[in-house]
Amino acid sequence: MKQTMTLIPTLRETPADAEIKSHQLLLRAGFMRQNSSGVYSFMPLGIRVLQKIETIVREEMENAGAVELLMPALQQAEFWQESGRWYSYGPELMRLKDRNNREFALGATHEEVITSLVRDEVKSYKRLPLTVYQIQTKFRDEKRPRFGLLRGREFIMKDAYSFHANQESLDEVYQRLFTAYTNIFTRCGVDFRAVIADSGAMGGKDTHEFMVLSEVGEDTIAYSDTSDYAANVEMAPVILTKERSTETENPLEKIETPGQKTIEDVASFLNVSQQQCIKTLLFKVDDKYVAVLVRGDHEVNDIKLKNFYDAGSVELASPAETQEILGCPVGSLGPVGLKEVEILADQEVEFLVNAVTGANEEDFHYINVNPNRDFEVSQYTDLRFIQEGDVSPDGEGTIKFAKGIEVGHVFKLGTRYSEAMNAVYLDENGRSQPMIMGCYGIGVSRTLAAVAEQFNDDKGLLWPANLAPYQVHLIPVNMKDDTQAAVAEELYQDLKAQGLAVLMDDRKERAGVKFADSDLIGIPVRVTVGKKAADGILEVKIRKTGEVLEVNKAELAETLKGLL
Amino acid sequence: MKQTMTLIPTLRETPADAEIKSHQLLLRAGFMRQNSSGVYSFMPLGIRVLQKIETIVREEMENAGAVELLMPALQQAEFWQESGRWYSYGPELMRLKDRNNREFALGATHEEVITSLVRDEVKSYKRLPLTVYQIQTKFRDEKRPRFGLLRGREFIMKDAYSFHANQESLDEVYQRLFTAYTNIFTRCGVDFRAVIADSGAMGGKDTHEFMVLSEVGEDTIAYSDTSDYAANVEMAPVILTKERSTETENPLEKIETPGQKTIEDVASFLNVSQQQCIKTLLFKVDDKYVAVLVRGDHEVNDIKLKNFYDAGSVELASPAETQEILGCPVGSLGPVGLKEVEILADQEVEFLVNAVTGANEEDFHYINVNPNRDFEVSQYTDLRFIQEGDVSPDGEGTIKFAKGIEVGHVFKLGTRYSEAMNAVYLDENGRSQPMIMGCYGIGVSRTLAAVAEQFNDDKGLLWPANLAPYQVHLIPVNMKDDTQAAVAEELYQDLKAQGLAVLMDDRKERAGVKFADSDLIGIPVRVTVGKKAADGILEVKIRKTGEVLEVNKAELAETLKGLL
Repeated sequence: MKQTMTLIPTLRETPADAEIKSHQLLLRAGFMRQNSSGVYSFMPLGIRVLQKIETIVREEMENAGAVELLMPALQQAEFWQESGRWYSYGPELMRLKDRNNREFALGATHEEVITSLVRDEVKSYKRLPLTVYQIQTKFRDEKRPRFGLLRGREFIMKDAYSFHANQESLDEVYQRLFTAYTNIFTRCGVDFRAVIADSGAMGGKDTHEFMVLSEVGEDTIAYSDTSDYAANVEMAPVILTKERSTETENPLEKIETPGQKTIEDVASFLNVSQQQCIKTLLFKVDDKYVAVLVRGDHEVNDIKLKNFYDAGSVELASPAETQEILGCPVGSLGPVGLKEVEILADQEVEFLVNAVTGANEEDFHYINVNPNRDFEVSQYTDLRFIQEGDVSPDGEGTIKFAKGIEVGHVFKLGTRYSEAMNAVYLDENGRSQPMIMGCYGIGVSRTLAAVAEQFNDDKGLLWPANLAPYQVHLIPVNMKDDTQAAVAEELYQDLKAQGLAVLMDDRKERAGVKFADSDLIGIPVRVTVGKKAADGILEVKIRKTGEVLEVNKAELAETLKGLL
Repeated sequence: MKQTMTLIPTLRETPADAEIKSHQLLLRAGFMRQNSSGVYSFMPLGIRVLQKIETIVREEMENAGAVELLMPALQQAEFWQESGRWYSYGPELMRLKDRNNREFALGATHEEVITSLVRDEVKSYKRLPLTVYQIQTKFRDEKRPRFGLLRGREFIMKDAYSFHANQESLDEVYQRLFTAYTNIFTRCGVDFRAVIADSGAMGGKDTHEFMVLSEVGEDTIAYSDTSDYAANVEMAPVILTKERSTETENPLEKIETPGQKTIEDVASFLNVSQQQCIKTLLFKVDDKYVAVLVRGDHEVNDIKLKNFYDAGSVELASPAETQEILGCPVGSLGPVGLKEVEILADQEVEFLVNAVTGANEEDFHYINVNPNRDFEVSQYTDLRFIQEGDVSPDGEGTIKFAKGIEVGHVFKLGTRYSEAMNAVYLDENGRSQPMIMGCYGIGVSRTLAAVAEQFNDDKGLLWPANLAPYQVHLIPVNMKDDTQAAVAEELYQDLKAQGLAVLMDDRKERAGVKFADSDLIGIPVRVTVGKKAADGILEVKIRKTGEVLEVNKAELAETLKGLL
């Protein structure tokens, strides 16, 4: 492609509202443009990268036995009403009415449509399992669209759905797609982790998120520094490695702590470590109040608490609620003498000897508090967030934290949709059974941004060879020089004929402008046609390393193929 | 692909609401399913054909110098308000509000978005011309969705837009895209015509529709039986080939014609041919009334009348209006003595001698009416619809009619959008000029239906080789026969390895079901693995001709490649 024929609107300045590298560079290098908040046009360079990702996704999905189809964006409300999500999805689901006043949703996801389709067409166990996928535009009216393609309102996803007659079949396909996803992100060249994720209200057992590691990620990953263990920080269990202190238990003592409310205040005032304190928090778990104890330097993990009680909702009680129920301020809570509510404690609280707690009375704390001697709890269990430095839950290595951009998700849905929408099949015995389902998503346009976020330097983008919009950037330094123009044209035709994807900068711009644009765009290899072109010598530069070679015209194609 | 892995839900019965062949067969053969009125899912076979069409479109568009991009479906109302179409498009444009109550249109077309994009990025004549295209889903809330993919509410289009600094550049790109469209539909194998179309209110000079010839088409094409002339019937001019009759003019005579109101009635009552009568119709052209004369056997072409006056609207006056303005019923109108309104006549009226007309008085007609002697008109011009049997407007051959399905449209837009939306560039002299635009559409999903409409027989579909979802349909007659199953598996792997796209019917169904499904689906070549498979002999059947060959296993791949 010649640059005078296409549209690559590069920008010198960083757009003011673009906060992160990928957003800034994809705009500056002319890969995309915003239409309205969270809605973008993919410019000619952008769609080429998008299509390369799509090709990789298609190949790996086909290898995994998934079959492509294409469902509509315009989805009748009835489907969403059947699943119940018409009412629960909230304002993220964009809705409209047609000319006959019938309600529709714009597809935010396609569980309802595919469940309806398969329900109508598959009636027997003989037609199962079935795994289908599509690459389709999705619409979600995000409250705060941001970070360019990372959180948009119209975006491209690959979504797949599998249908099964038994759990083993789901497990097998789940594993196959897990492998496909690993292949896809490996081929995209990104540094990623498959992370154990929260199955939430879906009741599924297995669910993994595929996270591209990046400081701008919205999720925190806890991973082992030596094994391949990785989990969403909310999901990582803490394993017990310490033992109870052998220190002698001293007599319980109540002391005055005027004005000391936080763990930091109290520890400092009493000159003890925060690890020696017990933090007491009042939670509302569904309709019941529970006091939760963790060590002073630990944080309660709501999800573990929610899962412990198999609860629908968990929230911290307000100061007013706390005052009303326990008769004291939030900063003075403690388990000693607490009779009003059930007490639940993190497993590590039991190991404390001579700890510090609130006395359920303003300006007073207990010291020398000993679990089981001074208070009883209904259970000690894992209730806290894992921390950096903890032992990895698989027993291998130490936990570190990283931020991640979620680019994929594999999920065992179970019968959530098939039961709600009556997607049943007849089993070998002629009995009607709900289909068991899995769903599997990849954010295609988000992956493009995640790649851009990982591959850039201070001059611009650095595309991995198999995602680059073109393989070779051919730059005649001076298009007004007839020799250079002719050599460039000859090379352009020749390299194309040899199967290389070439972008040629045939603009009559200054060399400095061309080189700066070229660095910004980030095609892996640049061929400069300059003054030595008359002697058949060209300069080849590797964008990533800056390495420069002089190459004879006759050897150019082979050299480039070797480099790519 | 093995059929047990994919989803091809064939139907024995013709769906009740599918009126035309393509709609019936695409449903019956499992290529698509309806979600809601005018909204479809493309099933695995359907999307394969769709992608083959898309590949052809992309290749020809790239050859024509067009560059791909991708614009959003979610389009802010402001763009449409700038062009004015927010107000004029009517209920076909689907509209919605986001969570902040901002208005959006779902893209029915993308003139507004592309004009806005190019306006922002292209400022100088140096960056023109520019031709871009996308393949994107469109949304139009049709009043009466019907004929399956031929008139849907969510469908796939290729739309292209070109931007120019002068008319010559537009003419050149228009011609290039005209050629690209010709190549695309030729490669799709359809019988089509490029047809001169109405440029309507756009003011463009050149516009062509690409029509696939089909009885179910909604448009009528007038074409020459010997040359390549073809036009939308509304657009074909009539050329004069007759001369004035040399018959002697008789004296004008008013006669009683009790109860005779139509041309048929009067001609029959007076025993003259309809060609001897003059039909007089009162039209309202914008705010003015005009009497229009055509020969009794001709029909007034509104578009010619509208173009003659360069009018905004043309409609036939109601009987009440006619009575009020001319003081007589519609069936008695005539030009003799008509003073109330301007009279305009079709060019062929002037050739009539001793004609019959109404006398502007109920139950009376004139006979022996002679133009220019008995009445004057403001002008004789071409005002009628062309008819079968007329001389072709290019002077070569005779006009015939055919019905066509519009699958493509090339259109010189001019400055309609660039002026409304202020898309200007600086010319060589630094002066600001509106860009000159062209737009070019192809209905991708509609083309799929048009192909199905042209290629079928009483057993099912008959895909042309380069659009077929698979090239070879491999059918082991009995999957419970170990030899057949093994030979089929071996052939499946072998043919795939040789680069052939193979669908294998590995279902444990009866042979009759498999063959009927195979005919319905319409893959060009079928390979049957039957009893002779044990001896290495297979049956190859050409779907279109029914021709059957017996082929040795070792020669199968070569034979198939030869056939395809």
